[in-house]
Amino acid sequence: MSIREDVSKMKLVSPYVAAMSVEKRNEALLKVAEVLQANKEAIFAENKKDLEAAEKAGIAQATFKRLKFNEDKLNDVVKGIKQLVTLPDPLGKKTLERELDEGLLLNRVTVPIGVIGVIFEARPDALVQISSLCIKTGNCAILKGGKETTNSNRILFELIYKAIVEAGFPEGAMLLAETHSEIDELLECYGLVDLLIPRGSNQFVQYIMNNTKIPVMGHADGICHIYVDKAADFDKAIPIIVDAKTQYAAVCNAVETLLINRDIAKEFLPKLADALKEAGVEVRGTKEVTGVLFESGKQGEDSLKYTEIDESEFKEYLEFIVSAKLVADVDEAIGHINRFGSHHTDCIITEDAATADRFMQLVDSAGVYQNCSTRFADGFRYGFGAEVGISTSKLHARGPVGLEGLVTYKYKLVGQGHIVKDYADGTKEFHFKDL
Amino acid sequence: MSIREDVSKMKLVSPYVAAMSVEKRNEALLKVAEVLQANKEAIFAENKKDLEAAEKAGIAQATFKRLKFNEDKLNDVVKGIKQLVTLPDPLGKKTLERELDEGLLLNRVTVPIGVIGVIFEARPDALVQISSLCIKTGNCAILKGGKETTNSNRILFELIYKAIVEAGFPEGAMLLAETHSEIDELLECYGLVDLLIPRGSNQFVQYIMNNTKIPVMGHADGICHIYVDKAADFDKAIPIIVDAKTQYAAVCNAVETLLINRDIAKEFLPKLADALKEAGVEVRGTKEVTGVLFESGKQGEDSLKYTEIDESEFKEYLEFIVSAKLVADVDEAIGHINRFGSHHTDCIITEDAATADRFMQLVDSAGVYQNCSTRFADGFRYGFGAEVGISTSKLHARGPVGLEGLVTYKYKLVGQGHIVKDYADGTKEFHFKDL
Repeated sequence: MSIREDVSKMKLVSPYVAAMSVEKRNEALLKVAEVLQANKEAIFAENKKDLEAAEKAGIAQATFKRLKFNEDKLNDVVKGIKQLVTLPDPLGKKTLERELDEGLLLNRVTVPIGVIGVIFEARPDALVQISSLCIKTGNCAILKGGKETTNSNRILFELIYKAIVEAGFPEGAMLLAETHSEIDELLECYGLVDLLIPRGSNQFVQYIMNNTKIPVMGHADGICHIYVDKAADFDKAIPIIVDAKTQYAAVCNAVETLLINRDIAKEFLPKLADALKEAGVEVRGTKEVTGVLFESGKQGEDSLKYTEIDESEFKEYLEFIVSAKLVADVDEAIGHINRFGSHHTDCIITEDAATADRFMQLVDSAGVYQNCSTRFADGFRYGFGAEVGISTSKLHARGPVGLEGLVTYKYKLVGQGHIVKDYADGTKEFHFKDL
Repeated sequence: MSIREDVSKMKLVSPYVAAMSVEKRNEALLKVAEVLQANKEAIFAENKKDLEAAEKAGIAQATFKRLKFNEDKLNDVVKGIKQLVTLPDPLGKKTLERELDEGLLLNRVTVPIGVIGVIFEARPDALVQISSLCIKTGNCAILKGGKETTNSNRILFELIYKAIVEAGFPEGAMLLAETHSEIDELLECYGLVDLLIPRGSNQFVQYIMNNTKIPVMGHADGICHIYVDKAADFDKAIPIIVDAKTQYAAVCNAVETLLINRDIAKEFLPKLADALKEAGVEVRGTKEVTGVLFESGKQGEDSLKYTEIDESEFKEYLEFIVSAKLVADVDEAIGHINRFGSHHTDCIITEDAATADRFMQLVDSAGVYQNCSTRFADGFRYGFGAEVGISTSKLHARGPVGLEGLVTYKYKLVGQGHIVKDYADGTKEFHFKDL
């Protein structure tokens, strides 16, 4: 059976999921938490199969850690689910309540998006988080996880699906896609799927964006910048840069490019170079940057080099490498970021409030930061409880996407036989009274 | 010169437009109103050229009326601009203000989308309205109007552009595209243009949606439904249906399909048929509908026929024709609308509150109405001052799009040297306090 048939059924079911009360949705969430805990040994056993296969395939240590679903991870996701239950209902919120004329009432209320397809990396906890967000927001979901966690995904999905159906969700409200070819089938489901959220490599996300008419939310690149202003406090700048580069290098909110004010370069760069060297980070700088470093006696003697590269070679490394360039002032930094950045998260280090304001106003990114690590760009750290991803699109949801990004709205208009002709010919007039 | 170069420059200029104060933006709007009035004779003269050319080309009367830009239309747009000035600033609104931890402050503020391309029909007043909305929201705009109003568009654009630059907008903040080939060039400007808003025929909008990676806001179809429930008040139902079909048939919010509860069909259909006949509307019904009409003696004797068609032939007519079908209950109506509708605007006629609630909850459309004409689906009638279009997409903006649909947001995070490592290793903990 093709996935299209299942998705067609899901589309018809989705308004009924959207209409479920918050009590029912929360009940479903609590049931999910309960069955996950009650079946943990079975889950761990399935996860072990995935881990053994990964080990045989000689998977990298960092990836291996992600695949693991143990007691700690179970506790984390259960805690997350319980937090979601306590969060206010994102649905049915009136965001506009207006009397257009006597007896003609306009309301705008939040509703679920409908049918969402999420394609995510091999992380069993991601499956639980994404399903939970969809349950809370009354959305139907098609889930496709990485193939390295096939066994874990299958048992987790089965448990979750059974729990929500028992709690009153209609059959077909959630679906697990297991084969890679189903991704291409999904991309063809324009008109049935309301939103696709791909997570993964730049190349993969680009592929999705280029091959579907369905709206896509997410990000391909994460080229985050830190600009060190002439009014920077070095004691803040250096730990922030080290954190933003090394705390978790393989992610989209790690810093990739440093822009340093020319006035402080001679003083700041050697200190920064020492700190980055100690942290194991390679610096790839423009000729001017390597020049300052060589002059100051930093010859890149040991294993770490200060490679000279051209600005056009700056990129998203996702490892312990960072690009660096000198700029004349905050405006040059802003221009560089708006032109070469990915509109994800960019930071200024400065003690000067006016300069910070200018940077945060003019940099056109989802996150604009002052004096803190770019690694804070994350739904959990923003207090959203969970996230389905980070969006660099400017429409709908921008930055980390939590509950609010999974809802839309509809307009409800109630009249008493009102017709437009009366307003067109002047018999009646609107009076627009917000209630 | 290709339009891409202009759009590239616009992209770099757009953050500066976004940073303009509301005072400056309102000043620009007032200046626009002023120069339009001061140059009205010149505008009317250019418009006359367009009208003469249209007359020569033998253009339809309805279209001709749209091309005209006279004293009345000028007064309307000037009134619209002055209304926009009085509306609150849509930018810089804080929609989230949260202390993540001591000294670590998260704000979410509304900002313009950036660079918007609007392709609209041959209506000079549309050019003024769209530019005004973009000025108020701090967006840069590429405008492409219908070729039948080339002369009117050119003078209106020149006056508006001069006025806003005089008011302090940077050069290149607005652009008029004049040739049709520029539309295809525009579609290639992914990464430079943040949003496209096409208005026009189904076919044209489909073409835009199928040929660009840029997000598109708008609607292709407008297949609006009215469901007449068994608890309908006929005295409301009939005038509403006549209004929704005939008040302006060539538009997306006109009704195209009637769904009538089987229980009341024998009593209601003959009355409806009389009213529609008087209004000059042709009814195309399923076999069951024409059967009821024939039985009741409505033989479609005169010029008006009650044509029997199959449900699969129901479509968007945009003229004085309406499809009709009988349904068993509100749920069958909901199912039909969700499957065959275009998620634009759909209405129930009923005096039963519970049935109305069910319909408005379960119909998955931008507008769900009770006891009023679908023709109310319009930015002006919703009190938005103006609209750039109506969106049937579920993401970002849904329904009539006014100022709020032209803004997005960014997250601003201000720390004191905060790094993520401290939170990852447990040295610090978030406390999430909404301010």
